[in-house]
Amino acid sequence: MAEIDPAAVAQVATAARAARVASRRLALLTRADKDAALKALADALDAATDRIVAANAEDLERGRASGMTQGLLDRLALDPARVAAVARALRDVAALPDPVGEVVRGSTLANGLQLRQVRVPMGVVGMVYEARPNVTVDAAGLGLKSGNAVILRGGSAAEATNRALVDVLREALAAQGLPADAVTLLEGGRDAVRALLTARGLVDLIIPRGGAGLIQTVVTESTVPVIETGVGNCHVYVDAAADLDKALAIAVNSKVHRPSVCNAAESLLVHEAVAADFLPKVLAELSGAGVVLHTDDASGGLAERAGVPHERATDEDWATEYLALEMSVRVVPDLDTAMEHIRTFGSGHTEAIVTEDRAAARRFTQEVDAAVVMVNASTRFTDGGEFGFGAEIGISTQKLHARGPMALPELTTTKWVVEGDGQVRS
Amino acid sequence: MAEIDPAAVAQVATAARAARVASRRLALLTRADKDAALKALADALDAATDRIVAANAEDLERGRASGMTQGLLDRLALDPARVAAVARALRDVAALPDPVGEVVRGSTLANGLQLRQVRVPMGVVGMVYEARPNVTVDAAGLGLKSGNAVILRGGSAAEATNRALVDVLREALAAQGLPADAVTLLEGGRDAVRALLTARGLVDLIIPRGGAGLIQTVVTESTVPVIETGVGNCHVYVDAAADLDKALAIAVNSKVHRPSVCNAAESLLVHEAVAADFLPKVLAELSGAGVVLHTDDASGGLAERAGVPHERATDEDWATEYLALEMSVRVVPDLDTAMEHIRTFGSGHTEAIVTEDRAAARRFTQEVDAAVVMVNASTRFTDGGEFGFGAEIGISTQKLHARGPMALPELTTTKWVVEGDGQVRS
Repeated sequence: MAEIDPAAVAQVATAARAARVASRRLALLTRADKDAALKALADALDAATDRIVAANAEDLERGRASGMTQGLLDRLALDPARVAAVARALRDVAALPDPVGEVVRGSTLANGLQLRQVRVPMGVVGMVYEARPNVTVDAAGLGLKSGNAVILRGGSAAEATNRALVDVLREALAAQGLPADAVTLLEGGRDAVRALLTARGLVDLIIPRGGAGLIQTVVTESTVPVIETGVGNCHVYVDAAADLDKALAIAVNSKVHRPSVCNAAESLLVHEAVAADFLPKVLAELSGAGVVLHTDDASGGLAERAGVPHERATDEDWATEYLALEMSVRVVPDLDTAMEHIRTFGSGHTEAIVTEDRAAARRFTQEVDAAVVMVNASTRFTDGGEFGFGAEIGISTQKLHARGPMALPELTTTKWVVEGDGQVRS
Repeated sequence: MAEIDPAAVAQVATAARAARVASRRLALLTRADKDAALKALADALDAATDRIVAANAEDLERGRASGMTQGLLDRLALDPARVAAVARALRDVAALPDPVGEVVRGSTLANGLQLRQVRVPMGVVGMVYEARPNVTVDAAGLGLKSGNAVILRGGSAAEATNRALVDVLREALAAQGLPADAVTLLEGGRDAVRALLTARGLVDLIIPRGGAGLIQTVVTESTVPVIETGVGNCHVYVDAAADLDKALAIAVNSKVHRPSVCNAAESLLVHEAVAADFLPKVLAELSGAGVVLHTDDASGGLAERAGVPHERATDEDWATEYLALEMSVRVVPDLDTAMEHIRTFGSGHTEAIVTEDRAAARRFTQEVDAAVVMVNASTRFTDGGEFGFGAEIGISTQKLHARGPMALPELTTTKWVVEGDGQVRS
């Protein structure tokens, strides 16, 4: 790899050191201080609506000129209603419990030492993400609530919007007597990102949020600890003992409710005992909803007879996270083959079984290795909001530190506090 | 970096895939199965004492011939009593609670979905460590109890011993009808280690255990997630409001009780208000215990007047983890300077304050950023055994996943199990 531009390294080091100093103040704030600050930030965003919408118009203009798709333009757009929603999200974060200071466990040892493991902020957290500008404010808010300083690197498409948002947040922080460096926007080219990813010792954690390409780059290049998020090649397995009405609703909802997100299902596996009964119905309904079907021989034959359009699935299809109205479909002879398929092609995000058979459900939940395993429920429920966390910074697909939807506690680490009265080891 | 020998990559991939297959069996074992297996492994080690001691004699012979120090030879040596202790440690692990299956949290959502977050094994864990052969058996035992397959890479000095130990363990596993690949010894040169560190996707976690050099290498080269362990530049700060008898006992115990380990103190910081009273006593006692003292101007002057031998501390001293009977000593004007010193030179392992002042203790425990902060207790208490964990796989000095002494729960991850009755998102 080419060496990183020393100017970028210096820029990141300066920003990270300032963030570190800010993080030490943030770590000592009470919940009342932080909640008041979050509300002040929300008010400041509301008051700056025109300025933010104007900055966003520049980004939209640039996006249109460069031929950005309508879908991406929609994700990028901020009108006054969306700015209000972004501000409201900060007030929602204020209403959440403060993870910092929570005593996770504790005990008194035989020698009288009093141990407690206490949640404390990570310190400085870097976020690298793509277009949606609401992530900028969400990350700043979750960072502040969890006592962390954040260094934000949004996509270049949202550059002007992100700059306006962060300026407003920094001004509001300063007006509250809080360190503006609690929130920093990292500008500059690709080398600035590379410098952030290698700022080991200066940055405590990097969270990438975006497509598979972005996440792969961050994981490969980073020497700072990373929490991988979001790649979801999720399956719905319809067992021999499935209630086929539930199976139909779950398969369709998992695929079409919001196909562009990581917890949408990409593959449908159906036990051969119910294939003839179930597949014609579900394939017709999926196709009717606009889903392109990639079928194996058995499911293709059933689609053919039912007059449902379909394409032949390739090996690549099984491994593909479409993030679109497409789905691969396979008939399997048994639960073991379904689990073997998931083991081979799954990304460890969310896997669902539809069954009324206790033994099958028990095996599936025990043996399938994923952040979330569902029984008789849509894969779309893997979500911090749905899980009742009140906020979500991403969905971890790794095993270290956090797995599944991540919220405030996942942005903290712990510290052991040991209090004695002169104890020494003998 | 030079490319890794493809033969080493293939060797590690084969071993890791076999370990993965084994790990799937281990993940499903009941606690009763695992405890019975641990006891059988202990019995097998006892029965193989002669074979193990003979293999160890080869390593000792080679060590002596290559001029290994007496200290290292001692660490390497296994006599029948030590083999018995190693076997006993496995029985102790059998007596510990099983972390797998523990429900960490859970709830029922408004829509009736039942959520629970359950501890599950990591999968395949790699351990890279230095001379002491008991680590081989400890890691295998903790791995088995936590449902993980382990790939062990010990130091070359203990090669014959480790091979004998792992052969005995694998034979005993097979005799129990369990997969021998639950425990694999990684042999081969440096490229085998590099292949292990880069076996991303095949290995879930790497834990290095050893000196700063080993840990630095692993952290730098690994693309597999790593838990950093053990570098401890630990401080004892004696506050203005310290009970000086406690301070004397704690400073001496923290330094001399076992100077070669990571939780030994390396630096003594003393508030100027008590320096004249405290330092002559503590320096005389440390020096009397054989400690080489590296003093700043103020403490050096007091040592001089008290007739205690001392050397002038350099900037390098403050940053040095001596792991020996040496200590740096500084007089500080206040608590803030002590904390600033710790922030600059500490390694985030264990930091202790000696004080009777509640406010000083509160500030120190809140503001010092380390895995463990002690009040009025020896730094030597940072230890899985002392904390009551019953076993220790290392002491994490990183913030992600585990911080401080690590035992069985830290060798697990979690999985969300979500059970519904046909719920879909609307």
